[in-house]
Amino acid sequence: MTRWLTDDEQRAWRAFATATRLLTDRLDRDLLAAADMPSTYYELLVLLSEAPERTLRMSELANWTNSKPSRISHAINKLEQKGWVRREPCADDRRGWLAVLTDDGLATLQAAAPPHVASVREHLIDLLTPEQVGHLEDISRVLLGHLGAEPGSPSPPR
Amino acid sequence: MTRWLTDDEQRAWRAFATATRLLTDRLDRDLLAAADMPSTYYELLVLLSEAPERTLRMSELANWTNSKPSRISHAINKLEQKGWVRREPCADDRRGWLAVLTDDGLATLQAAAPPHVASVREHLIDLLTPEQVGHLEDISRVLLGHLGAEPGSPSPPR
Repeated sequence: MTRWLTDDEQRAWRAFATATRLLTDRLDRDLLAAADMPSTYYELLVLLSEAPERTLRMSELANWTNSKPSRISHAINKLEQKGWVRREPCADDRRGWLAVLTDDGLATLQAAAPPHVASVREHLIDLLTPEQVGHLEDISRVLLGHLGAEPGSPSPPR
Repeated sequence: MTRWLTDDEQRAWRAFATATRLLTDRLDRDLLAAADMPSTYYELLVLLSEAPERTLRMSELANWTNSKPSRISHAINKLEQKGWVRREPCADDRRGWLAVLTDDGLATLQAAAPPHVASVREHLIDLLTPEQVGHLEDISRVLLGHLGAEPGSPSPPR
Protein backbone atom coordinates (compact mmCIF):
# COMPACT_ATOMS: atom_id res chain seq x y z
CA MET A 1 0.00 0.00 0.00
CA THR A 2 1.22 3.46 -0.84
CA ARG A 3 1.68 5.65 2.18
CA TRP A 4 0.57 8.94 0.64
CA LEU A 5 1.92 12.14 2.10
CA THR A 6 -0.13 13.72 4.87
CA ASP A 7 -1.38 17.25 4.29
CA ASP A 8 1.50 18.67 6.34
CA GLU A 9 4.07 16.61 4.48
CA GLN A 10 2.55 17.43 1.11
CA ARG A 11 2.62 21.17 1.80
CA ALA A 12 6.22 20.99 3.01
CA TRP A 13 7.36 18.88 0.07
CA ARG A 14 5.72 21.07 -2.57
CA ALA A 15 6.98 24.29 -1.01
CA PHE A 16 10.48 22.84 -0.71
CA ALA A 17 10.54 21.45 -4.26
CA THR A 18 9.42 24.76 -5.76
CA ALA A 19 11.63 26.90 -3.51
CA THR A 20 14.80 24.96 -4.25
CA ARG A 21 14.16 25.05 -7.99
CA LEU A 22 13.51 28.79 -7.97
CA LEU A 23 16.54 29.41 -5.76
CA THR A 24 18.84 27.31 -7.94
CA ASP A 25 17.59 29.06 -11.08
CA ARG A 26 18.07 32.45 -9.49
CA LEU A 27 21.60 31.80 -8.19
CA ASP A 28 22.59 30.34 -11.57
CA ARG A 29 21.29 33.41 -13.38
CA ASP A 30 23.04 35.78 -10.99
CA LEU A 31 26.34 33.94 -11.33
CA LEU A 32 26.09 33.91 -15.10
CA ALA A 33 25.33 37.64 -15.15
CA ALA A 34 28.06 38.61 -12.67
CA ALA A 35 30.82 36.20 -13.58
CA ASP A 36 29.81 34.68 -16.90
CA MET A 37 30.09 31.12 -15.64
CA PRO A 38 27.65 28.36 -14.75
CA SER A 39 27.55 27.21 -11.16
CA THR A 40 29.21 23.90 -12.03
CA TYR A 41 32.37 25.79 -13.09
CA TYR A 42 32.26 27.91 -9.96
CA GLU A 43 32.02 24.84 -7.79
CA LEU A 44 35.00 23.20 -9.49
CA LEU A 45 37.11 26.34 -9.08
CA VAL A 46 36.20 26.50 -5.37
CA LEU A 47 37.15 22.86 -4.81
CA LEU A 48 40.49 23.34 -6.56
CA SER A 49 41.21 26.60 -4.73
CA GLU A 50 40.82 24.85 -1.39
CA ALA A 51 42.86 21.77 -2.24
CA PRO A 52 46.55 21.49 -1.31
CA GLU A 53 48.63 23.02 -4.11
CA ARG A 54 45.32 23.89 -5.81
CA THR A 55 45.40 20.42 -7.32
CA LEU A 56 42.96 17.51 -7.41
CA ARG A 57 42.74 14.28 -9.34
CA MET A 58 40.00 14.25 -11.94
CA SER A 59 38.49 11.27 -10.14
CA GLU A 60 38.39 13.25 -6.89
CA LEU A 61 36.58 16.12 -8.60
CA ALA A 62 34.01 13.64 -9.92
CA ASN A 63 33.54 12.17 -6.44
CA TRP A 64 33.34 15.51 -4.71
CA THR A 65 30.78 16.89 -7.08
CA ASN A 66 28.94 13.58 -7.36
CA SER A 67 29.33 13.78 -11.14
CA LYS A 68 30.12 11.31 -13.85
CA PRO A 69 33.80 11.35 -14.86
CA SER A 70 32.79 12.22 -18.44
CA ARG A 71 30.92 15.30 -17.23
CA ILE A 72 33.88 16.47 -15.15
CA SER A 73 36.23 15.84 -18.03
CA HIS A 74 34.04 17.97 -20.29
CA ALA A 75 33.84 20.80 -17.73
CA ILE A 76 37.60 20.73 -17.11
CA ASN A 77 38.19 20.96 -20.88
CA LYS A 78 36.17 24.16 -20.93
CA LEU A 79 38.01 25.56 -17.92
CA GLU A 80 41.31 24.66 -19.60
CA GLN A 81 40.28 26.54 -22.76
CA LYS A 82 39.60 29.60 -20.61
CA GLY A 83 43.05 29.26 -19.05
CA TRP A 84 41.63 28.78 -15.54
CA VAL A 85 42.78 25.19 -15.07
CA ARG A 86 45.58 23.12 -16.52
CA ARG A 87 45.85 19.38 -16.72
CA GLU A 88 48.90 17.46 -15.62
CA PRO A 89 49.63 13.76 -15.73
CA CYS A 90 49.54 12.12 -12.35
CA ALA A 91 53.09 11.20 -11.24
CA ASP A 92 52.09 8.09 -9.33
CA ASP A 93 49.36 6.80 -11.62
CA ARG A 94 50.00 6.49 -15.35
CA ARG A 95 46.35 6.58 -16.30
CA GLY A 96 45.43 9.40 -13.94
CA TRP A 97 45.24 13.12 -14.58
CA LEU A 98 45.38 16.05 -12.22
CA ALA A 99 43.54 19.35 -12.57
CA VAL A 100 45.47 22.38 -11.31
CA LEU A 101 43.95 25.82 -10.72
CA THR A 102 46.03 28.45 -12.54
CA ASP A 103 46.73 31.98 -11.27
CA ASP A 104 44.21 33.24 -13.80
CA GLY A 105 41.67 30.75 -12.51
CA LEU A 106 42.24 31.86 -8.94
CA ALA A 107 41.90 35.53 -9.91
CA THR A 108 38.68 34.74 -11.78
CA LEU A 109 37.29 32.93 -8.75
CA GLN A 110 38.28 35.79 -6.45
CA ALA A 111 36.44 38.23 -8.70
CA ALA A 112 33.36 35.99 -8.92
CA ALA A 113 33.12 35.28 -5.19
CA PRO A 114 31.83 38.65 -3.87
CA PRO A 115 28.80 38.88 -6.19
CA HIS A 116 28.08 35.18 -5.68
CA VAL A 117 28.15 35.51 -1.90
CA ALA A 118 25.95 38.61 -2.15
CA SER A 119 23.49 36.57 -4.21
CA VAL A 120 23.48 33.67 -1.71
CA ARG A 121 22.89 36.19 1.09
CA GLU A 122 20.13 38.04 -0.74
CA HIS A 123 18.15 35.01 -1.86
CA LEU A 124 18.76 32.64 1.05
CA ILE A 125 20.85 33.39 4.13
CA ASP A 126 19.73 36.93 4.93
CA LEU A 127 16.08 35.87 4.59
CA LEU A 128 16.43 33.41 7.47
CA THR A 129 16.86 33.81 11.21
CA PRO A 130 20.04 32.30 12.71
CA GLU A 131 17.79 29.61 14.15
CA GLN A 132 16.43 28.79 10.69
CA VAL A 133 19.96 28.67 9.29
CA GLY A 134 20.66 26.07 11.98
CA HIS A 135 17.55 24.09 11.06
CA LEU A 136 18.54 24.18 7.42
CA GLU A 137 21.96 22.78 8.24
CA ASP A 138 20.50 20.04 10.47
CA ILE A 139 18.02 18.97 7.82
CA SER A 140 20.65 19.07 5.09
CA ARG A 141 23.02 16.91 7.15
CA VAL A 142 20.33 14.30 7.64
CA LEU A 143 19.87 14.16 3.87
CA LEU A 144 23.61 14.03 3.22
CA GLY A 145 24.03 11.22 5.71
CA HIS A 146 21.36 9.26 3.87
CA LEU A 147 22.37 10.15 0.31
CA GLY A 148 25.96 9.30 1.11
CA ALA A 149 28.03 12.42 0.64
CA GLU A 150 29.87 14.88 2.74
CA PRO A 151 29.24 18.50 1.80
CA GLY A 152 32.27 20.16 0.20
CA SER A 153 34.46 20.60 3.22
CA PRO A 154 37.39 23.01 3.18
CA SER A 155 40.03 20.48 2.23
CA PRO A 156 39.05 17.36 0.35
CA PRO A 157 41.27 14.40 1.26
CA ARG A 158 43.85 13.56 -1.40
CA MET B 1 32.58 45.49 1.22
CA THR B 2 31.63 41.89 0.80
CA ARG B 3 29.88 40.43 3.81
CA TRP B 4 31.36 36.95 3.64
CA LEU B 5 29.37 34.13 5.15
CA THR B 6 30.08 33.34 8.81
CA ASP B 7 31.29 29.83 9.59
CA ASP B 8 27.77 28.79 10.61
CA GLU B 9 26.25 30.23 7.46
CA GLN B 10 28.94 28.73 5.26
CA ARG B 11 28.43 25.26 6.72
CA ALA B 12 24.65 25.53 6.33
CA TRP B 13 24.89 26.84 2.77
CA ARG B 14 27.31 24.18 1.59
CA ALA B 15 25.39 21.35 3.23
CA PHE B 16 22.13 22.65 1.77
CA ALA B 17 23.56 23.16 -1.73
CA THR B 18 25.01 19.65 -1.85
CA ALA B 19 21.99 18.00 -0.23
CA THR B 20 19.48 19.56 -2.59
CA ARG B 21 21.54 18.63 -5.63
CA LEU B 22 21.94 15.03 -4.49
CA LEU B 23 18.26 14.80 -3.58
CA THR B 24 17.13 16.21 -6.93
CA ASP B 25 19.43 13.84 -8.81
CA ARG B 26 18.18 10.90 -6.80
CA LEU B 27 14.47 11.66 -7.19
CA ASP B 28 14.98 12.24 -10.92
CA ARG B 29 16.75 8.91 -11.31
CA ASP B 30 14.06 7.07 -9.32
CA LEU B 31 11.26 8.62 -11.36
CA LEU B 32 13.00 7.77 -14.62
CA ALA B 33 13.52 4.18 -13.48
CA ALA B 34 10.00 3.69 -12.14
CA ALA B 35 7.93 5.69 -14.61
CA ASP B 36 10.27 6.44 -17.51
CA MET B 37 9.67 10.19 -17.33
CA PRO B 38 11.71 13.19 -16.21
CA SER B 39 10.42 15.14 -13.24
CA THR B 40 9.40 18.09 -15.44
CA TYR B 41 6.84 15.86 -17.20
CA TYR B 42 5.59 14.50 -13.90
CA GLU B 43 5.10 18.01 -12.58
CA LEU B 44 3.10 19.06 -15.66
CA LEU B 45 0.87 16.00 -15.39
CA VAL B 46 0.22 16.75 -11.70
CA LEU B 47 -0.70 20.36 -12.41
CA LEU B 48 -3.09 19.33 -15.18
CA SER B 49 -4.64 16.53 -13.10
CA GLU B 50 -5.52 19.04 -10.36
CA ALA B 51 -6.90 21.74 -12.64
CA PRO B 52 -10.65 22.04 -13.33
CA GLU B 53 -11.51 19.79 -16.29
CA ARG B 54 -7.86 18.72 -16.30
CA THR B 55 -7.16 21.74 -18.46
CA LEU B 56 -4.76 24.67 -18.26
CA ARG B 57 -3.63 27.37 -20.64
CA MET B 58 -0.08 26.93 -21.87
CA SER B 59 0.73 30.32 -20.37
CA GLU B 60 -0.56 29.15 -16.98
CA LEU B 61 1.63 26.06 -17.13
CA ALA B 62 4.62 28.29 -17.86
CA ASN B 63 3.76 30.55 -14.92
CA TRP B 64 3.08 27.72 -12.54
CA THR B 65 6.32 25.95 -13.31
CA ASN B 66 8.27 29.20 -13.60
CA SER B 67 9.40 28.10 -17.06
CA LYS B 68 9.88 29.86 -20.36
CA PRO B 69 6.90 29.39 -22.71
CA SER B 70 9.21 27.75 -25.28
CA ARG B 71 10.30 25.15 -22.74
CA ILE B 72 6.70 24.34 -21.80
CA SER B 73 5.71 24.18 -25.44
CA HIS B 74 8.51 21.69 -26.08
CA ALA B 75 7.55 19.55 -23.07
CA ILE B 76 3.86 19.57 -24.02
CA ASN B 77 4.80 18.45 -27.53
CA LYS B 78 6.54 15.44 -26.03
CA LEU B 79 3.56 14.68 -23.78
CA GLU B 80 1.27 15.00 -26.77
CA GLN B 81 3.37 12.49 -28.74
CA LYS B 82 3.01 10.06 -25.86
CA GLY B 83 -0.76 10.56 -25.91
CA TRP B 84 -0.84 11.92 -22.36
CA VAL B 85 -1.91 15.43 -23.22
CA ARG B 86 -3.81 16.98 -26.09
CA ARG B 87 -3.81 20.56 -27.23
CA GLU B 88 -6.96 22.53 -27.92
CA PRO B 89 -7.41 26.05 -29.16
CA CYS B 90 -8.60 28.44 -26.51
CA ALA B 91 -12.25 29.41 -27.13
CA ASP B 92 -11.96 32.92 -25.71
CA ASP B 93 -8.47 33.78 -26.97
CA ARG B 94 -7.59 33.19 -30.61
CA ARG B 95 -3.87 33.07 -30.01
CA GLY B 96 -4.07 30.92 -26.90
CA TRP B 97 -3.81 27.17 -26.53
CA LEU B 98 -5.00 24.84 -23.82
CA ALA B 99 -3.34 21.66 -22.65
CA VAL B 100 -5.74 18.91 -21.59
CA LEU B 101 -4.73 15.79 -19.67
CA THR B 102 -6.04 12.70 -21.50
CA ASP B 103 -7.36 9.54 -19.84
CA ASP B 104 -4.10 7.85 -20.80
CA GLY B 105 -2.15 10.70 -19.21
CA LEU B 106 -4.15 10.41 -16.01
CA ALA B 107 -3.64 6.63 -15.91
CA THR B 108 0.10 7.14 -16.45
CA LEU B 109 0.25 9.66 -13.63
CA GLN B 110 -1.71 7.37 -11.33
CA ALA B 111 0.76 4.57 -12.04
CA ALA B 112 3.77 6.84 -11.52
CA ALA B 113 2.55 8.42 -8.29
CA PRO B 114 3.05 5.51 -5.83
CA PRO B 115 6.74 4.90 -6.63
CA HIS B 116 7.37 8.65 -6.74
CA VAL B 117 5.79 9.20 -3.33
CA ALA B 118 7.76 6.24 -1.96
CA SER B 119 10.93 7.87 -3.28
CA VAL B 120 10.08 11.27 -1.75
CA ARG B 121 9.39 9.49 1.56
CA GLU B 122 12.56 7.40 1.46
CA HIS B 123 14.97 10.19 0.55
CA LEU B 124 13.36 13.14 2.33
CA ILE B 125 10.19 13.02 4.40
CA ASP B 126 10.72 9.83 6.38
CA LEU B 127 14.25 10.95 7.30
CA LEU B 128 12.91 13.99 9.13
CA THR B 129 11.01 14.46 12.38
CA PRO B 130 7.57 16.11 12.08
CA GLU B 131 9.19 19.18 13.62
CA GLN B 132 11.85 19.23 10.90
CA VAL B 133 9.19 18.85 8.23
CA GLY B 134 7.60 21.96 9.73
CA HIS B 135 10.91 23.82 9.71
CA LEU B 136 11.45 22.85 6.09
CA GLU B 137 8.06 24.23 5.13
CA ASP B 138 8.64 27.47 7.05
CA ILE B 139 12.03 28.02 5.44
CA SER B 140 10.69 27.16 1.98
CA ARG B 141 7.81 29.62 2.36
CA VAL B 142 10.22 32.40 3.26
CA LEU B 143 12.14 31.68 0.06
CA LEU B 144 8.96 31.47 -2.02
CA GLY B 145 7.74 34.78 -0.64
CA HIS B 146 11.01 36.35 -1.66
CA LEU B 147 11.44 34.62 -5.01
CA GLY B 148 7.90 35.45 -5.95
CA ALA B 149 6.01 32.22 -6.45
CA GLU B 150 3.39 30.21 -4.75
CA PRO B 151 4.16 26.52 -4.51
CA GLY B 152 1.93 24.36 -6.71
CA SER B 153 -1.29 24.55 -4.76
CA PRO B 154 -4.08 22.07 -5.36
CA SER B 155 -6.04 24.18 -7.82
CA PRO B 156 -4.24 26.84 -9.84
CA PRO B 157 -6.49 29.81 -10.58
CA ARG B 158 -7.79 29.87 -14.14
